[in-house]
Amino acid sequence: MTYCIAASIDEGLILVSDSRTNAGIDNVSTYGKMHAFKTNDDRKIVLLCAGNLATTQAVLEQLHRDKIKNAGVNINNVECLSEAAAYLGHVSVEKQKQHVNSEGQSAFNPSASFILAGQIGDEPHGAYMVYAEGNSITSSANTPFLQIGESKYGKPILDRFLKLNTSIDEAARCCLVSMDSTIRSNASVGPPVEMLIYRKNSFSFDEYYCFDGDDDYLLQLRRSWEAKLREAIGALPSLNKEAVKVMRVDL
Amino acid sequence: MTYCIAASIDEGLILVSDSRTNAGIDNVSTYGKMHAFKTNDDRKIVLLCAGNLATTQAVLEQLHRDKIKNAGVNINNVECLSEAAAYLGHVSVEKQKQHVNSEGQSAFNPSASFILAGQIGDEPHGAYMVYAEGNSITSSANTPFLQIGESKYGKPILDRFLKLNTSIDEAARCCLVSMDSTIRSNASVGPPVEMLIYRKNSFSFDEYYCFDGDDDYLLQLRRSWEAKLREAIGALPSLNKEAVKVMRVDL
Repeated sequence: MTYCIAASIDEGLILVSDSRTNAGIDNVSTYGKMHAFKTNDDRKIVLLCAGNLATTQAVLEQLHRDKIKNAGVNINNVECLSEAAAYLGHVSVEKQKQHVNSEGQSAFNPSASFILAGQIGDEPHGAYMVYAEGNSITSSANTPFLQIGESKYGKPILDRFLKLNTSIDEAARCCLVSMDSTIRSNASVGPPVEMLIYRKNSFSFDEYYCFDGDDDYLLQLRRSWEAKLREAIGALPSLNKEAVKVMRVDL
Repeated sequence: MTYCIAASIDEGLILVSDSRTNAGIDNVSTYGKMHAFKTNDDRKIVLLCAGNLATTQAVLEQLHRDKIKNAGVNINNVECLSEAAAYLGHVSVEKQKQHVNSEGQSAFNPSASFILAGQIGDEPHGAYMVYAEGNSITSSANTPFLQIGESKYGKPILDRFLKLNTSIDEAARCCLVSMDSTIRSNASVGPPVEMLIYRKNSFSFDEYYCFDGDDDYLLQLRRSWEAKLREAIGALPSLNKEAVKVMRVDL
């Protein structure tokens, strides 16, 4: 399993990904899911990957080859992020088709999904989620984040906290809490946790972090968060005992 | 969809359920999923239901009929909660078998799952989750709660906070936050929210609450929780900029 988040807010982008890959619970490996492209100076593009590892590797390889050859559409000549997402979707569908479900492989699933994020030229920064079917969506003012993989455990904190005008440092901590909650609740999502903070118009991937499972900062974050949650629950309003109702006894 | 929680802690039980039922997104209804039995005085038993509504209604009806007839095993003569769970599992499997998937019904799924909770005689209080297959598990010291239905959104807060020795009032608020997070993140889980607090050895279902969507207490709880989360994220340790690493640019 995988969990990746892309928050696209006023100040820039926050990208967070786990590194656990499994082919069955007895075959667990560590693979980074955040990949940056070496591109022309007018753009910065990063990919987050979920799904079948063979598919995502084949897609990344193809994008890399297309860029080197520089013949048709490639990551260096797309004019905007939505064009990049459409190109990625097209390559992804092609790679999945090469390994479609044939007889005797009923449990085999070559599908993969991606988040493509960054900034190109004078265009604003942004993020696109590319579905296994090749189509894509971007984030919005109401929902300034995208998730791929095991997205449910970590969604409530993003739903409740993340806004377009959230400061980039707080948004980064919010995304790390979302990742930590998912790691805590699902053993198939695991460290190292990669995080990239991209400040708009910087065209720089300098603020990159990679936290191991026993990283001091991640442990501090978790302890601080759990202590604060206990405080928060302690401070919630008490039940009004006068609101008690008579329970239906219907059986 | 459905979301139900049963916390079984030292002081007793907390049961929380939503009330939204849907057969497709254009056919949404309100059905309570918490059902109490009228039993002999030596026991208190309550059921939470998820899954196919026809199946859960048929199961409840059968349990009710068995109790009235009082011929074979029924909810009034089982000696412990695990026997009650086995009996419930048996009835559930039988009811599902009557409506197995036949041709032309590829999307039809009669499966249902249950949580059975309460206390019988001198036995300790407890809760069992009965799977669609009829088998069951109970909670443990490490995991003092059970969930059925849309369980992922609300699991992190239970994972992080709920312990056997949590006070029953705090556990109740924690379960309500878990429910509220799920309602916020999944439109197919919705109010009214029912909550039953059972204090061990009380053999009483007097502490029953039913909160509508615009209930003042539930709104206060949500506002207070969101304010506290903002404080919590604000108080998390800042990233150490010296921990920045060089990002692999591999494509």
